[in-house]
Amino acid sequence: MNNERINCILELMEEASLDYFLISDPQSIAYCTDYYNNPYERLFVLMISKHGDHKLFMNDLFYLEDSLDIEIVWHKDGDDAIQSIVDHMTFPNRIGIDKNWPSRYLLSMMKKLPKAKFINASPCVDLVRMKKDIQEQVLMLEASRINDLAMQEVIDLCKKGLSEIEIAQKLPEIYVKHGADGLSFEPMIAFGKNGADPHHGNDHTKPREGHSIIIDMGCTYKGYCSDMTRTVFYGGITEKQIEVYELVKKANEVAEKMIKPGVKLSDIDKCARTIITQAGYGPNFNHRLGHFIGRDVHEFGDVSDKFDMEVEPGMIFSIEPGIYLKDDFGVRIEDLVLVTEEGCQILNHYSKDIQII
Amino acid sequence: MNNERINCILELMEEASLDYFLISDPQSIAYCTDYYNNPYERLFVLMISKHGDHKLFMNDLFYLEDSLDIEIVWHKDGDDAIQSIVDHMTFPNRIGIDKNWPSRYLLSMMKKLPKAKFINASPCVDLVRMKKDIQEQVLMLEASRINDLAMQEVIDLCKKGLSEIEIAQKLPEIYVKHGADGLSFEPMIAFGKNGADPHHGNDHTKPREGHSIIIDMGCTYKGYCSDMTRTVFYGGITEKQIEVYELVKKANEVAEKMIKPGVKLSDIDKCARTIITQAGYGPNFNHRLGHFIGRDVHEFGDVSDKFDMEVEPGMIFSIEPGIYLKDDFGVRIEDLVLVTEEGCQILNHYSKDIQII
Repeated sequence: MNNERINCILELMEEASLDYFLISDPQSIAYCTDYYNNPYERLFVLMISKHGDHKLFMNDLFYLEDSLDIEIVWHKDGDDAIQSIVDHMTFPNRIGIDKNWPSRYLLSMMKKLPKAKFINASPCVDLVRMKKDIQEQVLMLEASRINDLAMQEVIDLCKKGLSEIEIAQKLPEIYVKHGADGLSFEPMIAFGKNGADPHHGNDHTKPREGHSIIIDMGCTYKGYCSDMTRTVFYGGITEKQIEVYELVKKANEVAEKMIKPGVKLSDIDKCARTIITQAGYGPNFNHRLGHFIGRDVHEFGDVSDKFDMEVEPGMIFSIEPGIYLKDDFGVRIEDLVLVTEEGCQILNHYSKDIQII
Repeated sequence: MNNERINCILELMEEASLDYFLISDPQSIAYCTDYYNNPYERLFVLMISKHGDHKLFMNDLFYLEDSLDIEIVWHKDGDDAIQSIVDHMTFPNRIGIDKNWPSRYLLSMMKKLPKAKFINASPCVDLVRMKKDIQEQVLMLEASRINDLAMQEVIDLCKKGLSEIEIAQKLPEIYVKHGADGLSFEPMIAFGKNGADPHHGNDHTKPREGHSIIIDMGCTYKGYCSDMTRTVFYGGITEKQIEVYELVKKANEVAEKMIKPGVKLSDIDKCARTIITQAGYGPNFNHRLGHFIGRDVHEFGDVSDKFDMEVEPGMIFSIEPGIYLKDDFGVRIEDLVLVTEEGCQILNHYSKDIQII
């Protein structure tokens, strides 16, 4: 158990007057216990109790390499594991659950505890996870260092004329060679007009002269994610591509420069968006400027107009403006930034200068 | 929209007296609409209405290549999409949701409709998905045909002495070369005592003489999964390994032979388990005999003592007995079977004879 993190969660639980908080997100459980387990369709719950008697509810098919310093309550396939959780609670009046707990469990527990009040209490852990401690920062720096190295190899593969899918397939091996665990998400390699879809799924397209190439990729290192996007050009570049690229780069760099404790996340989004909008491309930048990242590649917290929380030291999020021109091409440039006491540290170092390959 | 499938769902909804059924599982939505989309953390819901006015609730960031023959209700990040669903319902008294709908949505909807009754209605779609129609069977046959070809290549890589992780990394490329989309799950390559953990995560172990090698792998082909396990031996085999292997093989084959419409799934599990138990290895076969498979690698439906549904034509599930000997070795042999009118068709053809590589 990581007591420092648990104590932060308990403080937020107290503010929300919760008796118990049932955490089911495997990454949040790992954050608290240092034990990661993917339960697939089986129940896996960390019960944080205001009384201090925290428990982990596990299926006996889950494999434990080492013993854990938390009481484990085992169940088997077919057991009523929800009843077991209820049986281990004392006067549960206000029960927090986390946001993605499958509804089947919630409905079952509501039936067993008809008088209890159930609350989406995800912020009690999400707000803690937003700020990375030193141990986490070190891992995220390493994940991004590996991503810088891998980016060069992917760009080299683009030069060779491989298809989007062929390149994407080679990435896991590249990451592992550099010491990563694997992919943090399915990479996006988008040639030419495929890059006009910000969430393009890789296909068999091969690069042709004049294509922009969006490469959005990341790895995990000891459970922590990297995520970076670069856009390069194949065989040449048009005036329009230069204009769009420089605009996106400016939006990325100006936004990064304004990051420091006290600045609102929504104002960072606004700053980058204004630059793009004033140049006439507002409608072509149709997603948030960034997202928080850590154990998950998308964590709680946005850099968007909907999110006016102030930046604090230890936060790590992406800054990824993009311009997408339907049936033509797309450009996105993305870094991860770590907020420091005075400003921010950019975790990626791969060049953002125009590159024609 | 696939009207035949929707009509089956509507029949089950009527039996459950549901006014609306909110389907959020992206694979179930694809099953109904032929449109697959991974919404990540965003809301994506297919509302099946007893009145026939089905609707798809989508975030405007989702990309639609082609138009769909269903009404789409769009929302943006930050909109109250749950309110939008509620606004599109007429007298919603009994609302079905599917089993994994994130609790945050359910809690939000319960607040807006305090008098409505919410029911875990997953069976209304899960029971339909259990039986594959001809279109699905064709795709699953092809996914398993590719898996047979890939298995030989993986065994060839084992011969070369690569580590578990190195082999696993090469698999996506092998699958795509044979026409598959990619992995259906993270493959398990387990050498020697690593195979004693039925869910071992690949590591840097390399094969040594006397190792058993469990290879559990599958691909997706046009959205449908394959899944097969073979166990081979590296450089030699002991008497005990032969005994265990032949026992597992017998359990696998006897179980497969008894499959035909009308037989209970629990009895198939019992049959295989009895063979292993009578030989003294009962406690070492610590998982269900099989699982259903289709668009997801694990779908609703078990071959286990907890599941006494009768087998019906069109069902596809795995038969995968295993014996796991801690700190020593493991053996698992897994096929997929398709239930036919008279018996079953085994989808995998890779040999189950003892193989020393």
